[in-house]
Amino acid sequence: MTSEAITVLGLGNLGRALAETFLRHGHPTTVWNRSAAKASGLAATVATTAAEAVAASDLVVVALLDHQAAQEVLRDVDVRGRALVNVTSGTPEEAREMARWAEENGAEYLHGAVYAVPRTIGTAESSINYSGSSAVHERWQKQLALLGKVTFLGADAGLASGYDVAILSGMYGLIGGFLHGTAVARAAGINATELMPMMWSWLTDMHPALITFAEEIDSGNYAAGESSLAMNQTGLAMLIRATEAQGVPFAALGELKALVDRQVADGHGEESLARAVESFSGVASQRLAG
Amino acid sequence: MTSEAITVLGLGNLGRALAETFLRHGHPTTVWNRSAAKASGLAATVATTAAEAVAASDLVVVALLDHQAAQEVLRDVDVRGRALVNVTSGTPEEAREMARWAEENGAEYLHGAVYAVPRTIGTAESSINYSGSSAVHERWQKQLALLGKVTFLGADAGLASGYDVAILSGMYGLIGGFLHGTAVARAAGINATELMPMMWSWLTDMHPALITFAEEIDSGNYAAGESSLAMNQTGLAMLIRATEAQGVPFAALGELKALVDRQVADGHGEESLARAVESFSGVASQRLAG
Ligand SMILES: NC(=O)c1ccc[n+]([C@@H]2O[C@H](COP(=O)([O-])OP(=O)(O)OC[C@H]3O[C@@H](n4cnc5c(N)ncnc54)[C@H](OP(=O)(O)O)[C@@H]3O)[C@@H](O)[C@H]2O)c1
Ligand SMILES: NC(=O)c1ccc[n+]([C@@H]2O[C@H](COP(=O)([O-])OP(=O)(O)OC[C@H]3O[C@@H](n4cnc5c(N)ncnc54)[C@H](OP(=O)(O)O)[C@@H]3O)[C@@H](O)[C@H]2O)c1
Repeated sequence: MTSEAITVLGLGNLGRALAETFLRHGHPTTVWNRSAAKASGLAATVATTAAEAVAASDLVVVALLDHQAAQEVLRDVDVRGRALVNVTSGTPEEAREMARWAEENGAEYLHGAVYAVPRTIGTAESSINYSGSSAVHERWQKQLALLGKVTFLGADAGLASGYDVAILSGMYGLIGGFLHGTAVARAAGINATELMPMMWSWLTDMHPALITFAEEIDSGNYAAGESSLAMNQTGLAMLIRATEAQGVPFAALGELKALVDRQVADGHGEESLARAVESFSGVASQRLAG
Repeated sequence: MTSEAITVLGLGNLGRALAETFLRHGHPTTVWNRSAAKASGLAATVATTAAEAVAASDLVVVALLDHQAAQEVLRDVDVRGRALVNVTSGTPEEAREMARWAEENGAEYLHGAVYAVPRTIGTAESSINYSGSSAVHERWQKQLALLGKVTFLGADAGLASGYDVAILSGMYGLIGGFLHGTAVARAAGINATELMPMMWSWLTDMHPALITFAEEIDSGNYAAGESSLAMNQTGLAMLIRATEAQGVPFAALGELKALVDRQVADGHGEESLARAVESFSGVASQRLAG
């Protein structure tokens, strides 16, 4: 069995790790990077233009700085018949724009959101969510699986980025809370490693509550709130006072409280805490549109 | 076997649930509340003063609005020989102040942090962390276990509140991130219930990283950062831009980024993200003092 030719556009930290992985698995790999020096030391065919690189393989993996860089690089390239797999980070709308451009220019488009650092690309620690062309996902599944665990989210090219931005928002909330919690604990003479087991079991115990919140958010029915907005408003106010009294304030708590306050002021105090999501603009309108 | 007499000071939502639980298990219970009407319907002995209530039982459980209310109620009461178990919320320092006062006045003091709503007091869903007198914890363990799962954290009366404030900080961070993540997802056409499985598995996958962060924070050695401050500074900036582009900004992300920025500006960009905790005041000094 001959290995398929693969092209990688962009040899930044991520692009280089992608190219190295394909090469390690015996794929004839063509690379292109704006600054040619970045290709040094790679056992790949180095193309002098992006167009030349795209012409070399049916599968073209794009890993550039951002949407704008990807647009600039691809703009004048003939991509007809190519499977474009773009793992450049961006917004859902940028991914959809790229998908439209690809379709107009005769290419099939799959967008990827990478959950890995370059060092873990090609290991079991790496996973990549894809959305867009299911044909590309099916045809190139084995090759994409070399990079990390493959999850296909659906035909809308924007889904991978949508999940990405949503998950990262959740993750940084958790990290912010963890860091603040450990700072507060230290101010009370408790080490972070002492705190960690109880904090973690408390956080994981929230799983059922978050599932209920998710159902309430999707239905827009917050009436049966177990944990009311009013109760959490009081709790947040107390917590803010307590962390201030310990000399470790964190304005992020105030931002959350502001979401809660808005709903209480609108007369929803007895409803579920999950309703605080309606204080973000666009949530209710999205439900009406959906 | 005769059941021990127990006194409950304060018949707010929590205090009443505590008294009902002791009564249900056959403990002769004496109650006192500032507004006497709140005792109606309870099969308890209703004391007319706090002093009279405290005189009635060896175990006195205190559930009042806040530290100040507890101080006002107890100030002139003879507490000699009593086991005082105070589940009033407050700061670690307030609990320590109460413990000192109790010791000076011949009582033994245990502070409790309640993880329950009044409705779940006395069920398997309720748990209470205690710290302070281990003698009180041992002597009254069976009676305290009627209220909910008992965890004893140590002899420092401030520990229960310290853990409480720290855990709640972590919890509200997670909730804020979850709500923001679901708002962002909806703006991209993804339902909260669709998002939830992947978001949750991603969050729970962070356990090893948080354990490493905790070790780094305790040691003050952030050199071997797997996830560097500089990388997260870029990631947060991108995420903030992406959520703004979707019309769902959340200033809490900016607050976290400010912690990161401060450490990067101080020249620690290549060190671990965990170092962002040092941007909270008092953390480094706590380590030096510890
Ligand atoms: N690194 C990670 O751990 C990771 C993880 C998940 C997602 N990502 C995403 O993957 C993408 C690439 O990340 P990276 O870490 O490889 O970034 P990087 O190391 O900064 O590399 C950026 C690449 O983009 C190129 N580039 C920038 N502007 C360009 C332009 N106008 N025209 C042509 N080429 C341009 C650079 O070329 P030059 O060499 O000529 O400057 C370089 O090849 C980003 O969107 C990133 O968010 C990265
Ligand atoms: N409820 C919960 O789910 C829960 C959970 C965990 C912890 N906690 C903590 O438990 C404590 C009590 O909560 P709760 O829900 O029972 O509160 P609550 O329903 O508001 O009751 C407050 C109690 O404090 C009394 N009080 C207030 N100021 C007073 C003063 N200056 N002198 C004498 N008595 C005074 C009130 O007496 P009057 O009836 O005369 O006003 C009432 O008995 C709080 O610290 C709370 O944070 C509660």
